[in-house]
Amino acid sequence: MPKRFQEPLIIVNFKAYTEATGRKSVELAKKAEKVSDETGVSVGVAPQFADIASVAKAVEIPVFAQHIDPIKPGSFTGHVLAGSVKEAGAVGTLINHSERQLKLSDINEIVAITRENNLRSLVCANNPNVSAAVVALKPDIIAVEPPELIGTGIPVSKAKPEVVTGTVRLVRAINPRVTILCGAGITRGEDVAAALKLGTQGVLVASGIVKAKDPYTVLREFAEATKR
Amino acid sequence: MPKRFQEPLIIVNFKAYTEATGRKSVELAKKAEKVSDETGVSVGVAPQFADIASVAKAVEIPVFAQHIDPIKPGSFTGHVLAGSVKEAGAVGTLINHSERQLKLSDINEIVAITRENNLRSLVCANNPNVSAAVVALKPDIIAVEPPELIGTGIPVSKAKPEVVTGTVRLVRAINPRVTILCGAGITRGEDVAAALKLGTQGVLVASGIVKAKDPYTVLREFAEATKR
Amino acid sequence: MPKRFQEPLIIVNFKAYTEATGRKSVELAKKAEKVSDETGVSVGVAPQFADIASVAKAVEIPVFAQHIDPIKPGSFTGHVLAGSVKEAGAVGTLINHSERQLKLSDINEIVAITRENNLRSLVCANNPNVSAAVVALKPDIIAVEPPELIGTGIPVSKAKPEVVTGTVRLVRAINPRVTILCGAGITRGEDVAAALKLGTQGVLVASGIVKAKDPYTVLREFAEATKR
Amino acid sequence: MPKRFQEPLIIVNFKAYTEATGRKSVELAKKAEKVSDETGVSVGVAPQFADIASVAKAVEIPVFAQHIDPIKPGSFTGHVLAGSVKEAGAVGTLINHSERQLKLSDINEIVAITRENNLRSLVCANNPNVSAAVVALKPDIIAVEPPELIGTGIPVSKAKPEVVTGTVRLVRAINPRVTILCGAGITRGEDVAAALKLGTQGVLVASGIVKAKDPYTVLREFAEATKR
Repeated sequence: MPKRFQEPLIIVNFKAYTEATGRKSVELAKKAEKVSDETGVSVGVAPQFADIASVAKAVEIPVFAQHIDPIKPGSFTGHVLAGSVKEAGAVGTLINHSERQLKLSDINEIVAITRENNLRSLVCANNPNVSAAVVALKPDIIAVEPPELIGTGIPVSKAKPEVVTGTVRLVRAINPRVTILCGAGITRGEDVAAALKLGTQGVLVASGIVKAKDPYTVLREFAEATKR
Repeated sequence: MPKRFQEPLIIVNFKAYTEATGRKSVELAKKAEKVSDETGVSVGVAPQFADIASVAKAVEIPVFAQHIDPIKPGSFTGHVLAGSVKEAGAVGTLINHSERQLKLSDINEIVAITRENNLRSLVCANNPNVSAAVVALKPDIIAVEPPELIGTGIPVSKAKPEVVTGTVRLVRAINPRVTILCGAGITRGEDVAAALKLGTQGVLVASGIVKAKDPYTVLREFAEATKR
Repeated sequence: MPKRFQEPLIIVNFKAYTEATGRKSVELAKKAEKVSDETGVSVGVAPQFADIASVAKAVEIPVFAQHIDPIKPGSFTGHVLAGSVKEAGAVGTLINHSERQLKLSDINEIVAITRENNLRSLVCANNPNVSAAVVALKPDIIAVEPPELIGTGIPVSKAKPEVVTGTVRLVRAINPRVTILCGAGITRGEDVAAALKLGTQGVLVASGIVKAKDPYTVLREFAEATKR
Repeated sequence: MPKRFQEPLIIVNFKAYTEATGRKSVELAKKAEKVSDETGVSVGVAPQFADIASVAKAVEIPVFAQHIDPIKPGSFTGHVLAGSVKEAGAVGTLINHSERQLKLSDINEIVAITRENNLRSLVCANNPNVSAAVVALKPDIIAVEPPELIGTGIPVSKAKPEVVTGTVRLVRAINPRVTILCGAGITRGEDVAAALKLGTQGVLVASGIVKAKDPYTVLREFAEATKR
């Protein structure tokens, strides 16, 4: 089990960024671990599939896959098997990210598969209604991200606080315990603090950290901001 | 560069089989390397994404990804970047396997990306016409596999020799040098020998090896059969 | 507005069956109208896109599209526009049928589009959890169909009553008014009666009517069964 | 059979434009027929699925579907059956438009299905290599359209003549008789004349006609330009 995996939670999605591919994914994960060690705040990372094993070997913080497929072991080529990312060291997976959207019944199937494989499920949604739909599938974590703000540096917690509060309201009416994250455009500590103030338990972030000139410093700022 | 990467060529697709996931993928790759070392025949392996790095570290034979996405580095979640599998140690990738079929323009884009990344492209097709279409996209290797025979143990080289000879004829009219493989239902050395006799330069195989009781022995038989 | 569009509701999905294509789609729709007229029970039909206009001209019962796309008018080729099926005479549309599954966010978008276009939305789901997810998107009608029973003649209301009752329970906890249908394997009046007894407000049926030797008689039996 | 269906050929894709939906699709098709009658030039139209029947009833020029699915009659919901658009009056179909791209093996399957149904196949491609791949599947007509120019008003025949000439060269090497169209950004007669001069047998056009203030006049200009 990874050390530190509780709320508040910061998950850094490495996407397919050059700055977080191969050796650089390990370096970035180590910075995330350093921040987590220094602040006591939970920081998880979601590297590309081919980097999961080396990242998971290098750090003890939670490692997520960016996606898995709705399959069991068998005759599937080019698919991502839950058991494969698990054996490589992942403790969970993103599901239905806006850049990797899935059919509804596949999300349901994948959440069930994560449970069977003892992986944490983090399902993404693009608005409050979709978040409510996702919660009906009983994931461990839900992250709401308005796709139009992803990568813009315009934080959802400021530009569209109603998306966050609307999600929190609808989701909490169905499930009082699921972890709620928000994401999109988050680049500063105050964006993180605002996200928590709106009722979330953390953030899902990507370019704000991965493309930062100094990822360690920005991530440290994020972690400190969760304590305000 | 991997040792031994010439015709005739045997590529073992590990798919999402339990027998070829995680540690077992490394063990199976080592058996493939042993066969290649003992026989001097080129044997490549295509493990799952999360296993590419450990397999490529453990063996010197050619390692293929099972798929890559038509993307350049950037804001893509849950995608497979050419640069990522390359840095993990892959020397090439399967493209458009019948279990991971792609849009035509994406196949074209991916072949271009493999070239830019100095990866070998192995594009799959399901019949002679589609093989001819694929060759127009200028891949390094083409593999024809009638999907209805995959996993059946009924070898394409016997059950549908006209698919293989038709492919060879149409493909050679367009490109005299591309490597032509065939696959589906290949479980014995004689199936491999038949495939070569029909004009191919090797085979793409999966369950015939991965699910064999003794993969080493069967693969060794395959390799010997290429010398007949 | 079509005559008779209230609970209990029988919707006949014409799929891409020869028996319900072109002129035959109009003939079948007329039989459905006859049953509706004779019994006073609401019967809707869902013909193929190219048949919507002629069916809607021929009958006054509710006509549904089998699918629409998550698009507004514009530069989309080969898509199905809400406004197009509406102008052709449809009063609603199936969404996310198990043979035409959609991404979660697209279902959400399409339900919103139906509302803007004053079309009824009938969203399909494959099990109780997915049904609960669908209801969060606020469709007018939901239909639960276990895909493994579709076309089998083994009625969901008998083979998997727990799927129906589970759906009714989860859905009613979220929305007390949405119309709940069930489908798959329904071929006899008693299957319909059983469906209503389990708490649904009707059935979504296809081969049970379309492929019947005498669709009128079977559909009449269905309609009578809703009155038991 | 429609009157006038020979080279040079102008096909107007109605897409999902409001200006070409429902009654307006019939009005626009009549303008196309008027131009064809007055000039003797072949003009085809590709309305939305739900409009095929009324358009085909109203005019005698060739009517195309914008897409069909790779299916035979059967248990398919929300799909477009060849036999359905045929019975509605279509004489052919667009396939693989850049806004409705398909898997390679599905394009192959659909071309075969059009042949069995006596429909003309018009397969789209985005560049010369993909055009060459498409021709291997033996369609009746091929249309090359660089997607980045679609809807821009920047004509492919001027902005990227090498895409057109490259396509003509590669395609003619494989098939001397297939009809070659080009499209994207074509808004004036001189664009059409340029397209023919580059070796094509006509154009595939959409917004240039559909969104024109006076579609009849522009289309008439197009038709006259084919005679230069």
